[in-house]
Amino acid sequence: MLILITNDDGYAAKGIRCLIEVAKEFGEVVVVAPDGPRSATGHAITMSVPLRLKQYHADDDGTRYFYTNGTPCDCVKLGTKVVLKGRKVDLVLSGINHGSNSSVSVLYSGTVGAAMEASMENIPAIGFSLCDYAADADFSAAQVYIRKILSRFVQHGFPEFTTLNVNVPKCPLESIKGIRVVRQTQGYWHEDLEERTDPYGGTYYWLTGWLVNTDKGEDTCEWALAHNYVSIQPVQHDLTAHNIIPELKFLEENE
Amino acid sequence: MLILITNDDGYAAKGIRCLIEVAKEFGEVVVVAPDGPRSATGHAITMSVPLRLKQYHADDDGTRYFYTNGTPCDCVKLGTKVVLKGRKVDLVLSGINHGSNSSVSVLYSGTVGAAMEASMENIPAIGFSLCDYAADADFSAAQVYIRKILSRFVQHGFPEFTTLNVNVPKCPLESIKGIRVVRQTQGYWHEDLEERTDPYGGTYYWLTGWLVNTDKGEDTCEWALAHNYVSIQPVQHDLTAHNIIPELKFLEENE
Repeated sequence: MLILITNDDGYAAKGIRCLIEVAKEFGEVVVVAPDGPRSATGHAITMSVPLRLKQYHADDDGTRYFYTNGTPCDCVKLGTKVVLKGRKVDLVLSGINHGSNSSVSVLYSGTVGAAMEASMENIPAIGFSLCDYAADADFSAAQVYIRKILSRFVQHGFPEFTTLNVNVPKCPLESIKGIRVVRQTQGYWHEDLEERTDPYGGTYYWLTGWLVNTDKGEDTCEWALAHNYVSIQPVQHDLTAHNIIPELKFLEENE
Repeated sequence: MLILITNDDGYAAKGIRCLIEVAKEFGEVVVVAPDGPRSATGHAITMSVPLRLKQYHADDDGTRYFYTNGTPCDCVKLGTKVVLKGRKVDLVLSGINHGSNSSVSVLYSGTVGAAMEASMENIPAIGFSLCDYAADADFSAAQVYIRKILSRFVQHGFPEFTTLNVNVPKCPLESIKGIRVVRQTQGYWHEDLEERTDPYGGTYYWLTGWLVNTDKGEDTCEWALAHNYVSIQPVQHDLTAHNIIPELKFLEENE
């Protein structure tokens, strides 16, 4: 397998190095990652400035490493269309993100955005996140489950036009109870814009907040993670609220 | 009605001024827009740098105008949580975008991303786009339809937790045949990363491309726009591929 790896925490993050380690067991790995943190960049792409791409390293086994000034989505475009031009990419892996991408965070997530960029073109794609924001987080349990999940998908085949959004709870391996296939937890991000004053008297704001879970379902990502399961949410890219279409037909009348 | 307006082309774009003109007929308007172009920033939010917010203008009728260094989503957060803190926002309008937001462009769109940021918190939200990228595009036909659409929603009520993604074809008002409520056209963005050399010998890339429509349905946004209809796609924020969940249950086995 030819595997393209990216993330949204930047090329130097511990999480991407842990993902690369496992991915190498499954095929040829090429890394194209942002040159610094791009958390919460969602599905953003870069159109206002030119994109740069630089190979900064190669392992003895041939693994090549590139970084770019772009977003995680740009990394997938540059990886498939420039670095690996003319070759068929079999799998795109994104992460391991430092921090959860559950519930509505999936919309803000650069990790998941990059994976969706691939699955929109029907390249199998998985975004991996560990529910621990620490720079030196322990990814060893996540690595065990990534190995397990990749093995199973290689055996069974990947679903078409689908990203797998995998979240791993923050706990030791022996505390993880297993895997749950889940739907997105309904909820919203409660913002707190923290106001501060700079040394020159100017006002600025830091965007902070927390997830408000409005969904008590036991088939959700939040439930699974709270009960020490690894959650896998299949993600698709048709945003249409199909069930609403009939009730909006009044808009078409008397034209 | 208290109406918050933003866009992704920046506060100085013609499109947002045309939207403000119409919106004033429906209530009190407050504008919080990016300080420059933020096209294709999707659902990105700003966590790595502090956010600035500045009121740059007020009309004689009391309409207030702010700009920020943030993304369109940040504008909605700053608008609802800082500028209008404590007041109930009745409607968020985004646009009028210079250029189409049909098919998978909805995922990359800052215009739609901002509207979704509101509808995720159950504030009614509409993103408006004109299929004309020109800075001096003619928004007069779009204004007529925005007035019509807003009037109908005010009369009927807005659907819950839903963004309306409205695209207006590039043609004179008399050529527009009416409104169609549509689903998202299946397709993908074919990228062309144009390679150039800077004056110092360095390589850089411009991200360009075009939409590949793989969907011949007559209930889609692309069909409607190609036949001179205004398209309205209801958009929701649950990305789960619900139909795939049963076939992924093999992942839960033997844990």
